Amino acid sequence: MWCEVALDRNLPIGIFDSGVGGLTVYRALHEHLPNERFVYLGDTARVPYGTKSLATVESYAVENAQFLAAHGIKLLVVACNTASALALPAIRRALDIDVVGVIGPGARAAVASSSGKRIGVIATESTVHSGAYTRAIAKADPSATVVERACPLFVPLAEEGWADEDVARAVAETYLKDLRSSIDTLVLGCTHYPILKSVIQESVGGHVGLIDSGEATAVEVRSLLKEKGLAGSASGTGALERQLCDDLDHFYVTDAAERFARVAERFLGSKPARLEAVEVWGEDRLKA
Amino acid sequence: MWCEVALDRNLPIGIFDSGVGGLTVYRALHEHLPNERFVYLGDTARVPYGTKSLATVESYAVENAQFLAAHGIKLLVVACNTASALALPAIRRALDIDVVGVIGPGARAAVASSSGKRIGVIATESTVHSGAYTRAIAKADPSATVVERACPLFVPLAEEGWADEDVARAVAETYLKDLRSSIDTLVLGCTHYPILKSVIQESVGGHVGLIDSGEATAVEVRSLLKEKGLAGSASGTGALERQLCDDLDHFYVTDAAERFARVAERFLGSKPARLEAVEVWGEDRLKA
Repeated sequence: MWCEVALDRNLPIGIFDSGVGGLTVYRALHEHLPNERFVYLGDTARVPYGTKSLATVESYAVENAQFLAAHGIKLLVVACNTASALALPAIRRALDIDVVGVIGPGARAAVASSSGKRIGVIATESTVHSGAYTRAIAKADPSATVVERACPLFVPLAEEGWADEDVARAVAETYLKDLRSSIDTLVLGCTHYPILKSVIQESVGGHVGLIDSGEATAVEVRSLLKEKGLAGSASGTGALERQLCDDLDHFYVTDAAERFARVAERFLGSKPARLEAVEVWGEDRLKA
Repeated sequence: MWCEVALDRNLPIGIFDSGVGGLTVYRALHEHLPNERFVYLGDTARVPYGTKSLATVESYAVENAQFLAAHGIKLLVVACNTASALALPAIRRALDIDVVGVIGPGARAAVASSSGKRIGVIATESTVHSGAYTRAIAKADPSATVVERACPLFVPLAEEGWADEDVARAVAETYLKDLRSSIDTLVLGCTHYPILKSVIQESVGGHVGLIDSGEATAVEVRSLLKEKGLAGSASGTGALERQLCDDLDHFYVTDAAERFARVAERFLGSKPARLEAVEVWGEDRLKA
């Protein structure tokens, strides 16, 4: 007789991203789930995913997911919008725990908050090309109209720490000014974009509601853990007062840890206490 | 008794780059060497190299070099500044043909053209971090002063096709305005930067001479081939009138061929007639 092995509610939640951008999703999860520990993998050796093909993103994403699963996690959050758009079915086939992407939660939150159902989505080239947000929004509300747009300069702008510079304002204007009159809600469909929230809001106008897919994902993850009886406890984390990047959370990168720490400090205000460089693809390639 | 096997002068010249930027080096080589054929590899699955570590860039660069060597080339040009800065010794150990990077030629051309020996270098984060240009310039002229600066936004600006937009002007001003009074020569130390030549020139002022490392490399390659008796002939290329991207030149990418073709058209005015997607790392990983 087969029994399903119960997952330990004190296991950490896994998060993977193509690089450093997923830290905005980590921040949102940390805020909404103060009793959880996190293990984060940034695939900095192969970042960015946003200009790569379906097959490549799938293979990278599955390798990352398997690396985290092998370390013992109770649930996986795919923080990277591109990986969520392109590789969720492949990741779910490879893992036997719950896998949550950011597209579905972002789409549902947009539909819930939009009054006129005129929704814009800004994301990487690959995410836009996949049409994943348009499909997810249509699933949540077939009457909604969706316009998607790639904004590739937002990523390096955020990483440079230029979020409040005139340059960021000029780039945001160039990408977004014509959306102003045609949408009432805008999904920030790339993990870096929340860093540029204020210039994005200026460009589209105050009447447009901004949806942070990472925030929306954190809210859904909280419900899912509760529903499955997997919510962690303060005693499980071993600390009463959690801080972002404290030593209960573990960060892995596939390359350039120093740069990751520097950008993490820019995004979160602090560097990870525990940060390690690892290789996630060697073993599988050898077995292939 | 050992004999060195003579290389066939009608073999193509190999060029590799981390992605699409090396096409500016291809263009320069094509202009200076109209009697040569080229085989180009863009490592678009692992682009960009400019934020990655020494070990990672070395391993990617050697894989790319071996892929091109296996296809039969008489000389290899490492078009990527980051790979030239970090991986030239490793590539030279792995290959038994001449390997030319872009750093040395760029540095020598800067020293030759600078009247006051006050030289600026703009490049990726990894190239700047390596100090390779500063060392190469000091080797050519120990009295020269060098200031290096990373300009990460220039790459996506060039790829977006925004070279003449106000946004490009604003970004160039932010990066470069304080260099205006301190340099007389500026090395464009990343393959993408020649695309932005005019806004860069505006920002540093007309008195500053711009050095395109790709151009300088093409000039040195022409001399080297002549010296070694390896210069191709018009009859060897099989055509009297060559065009950029015509079917005598062969282009390989490791991912997303469609996007490569689109940006190639933006950079060169035409799409490659022969373009193939390949995987360059599988075999070596299996052997490791």
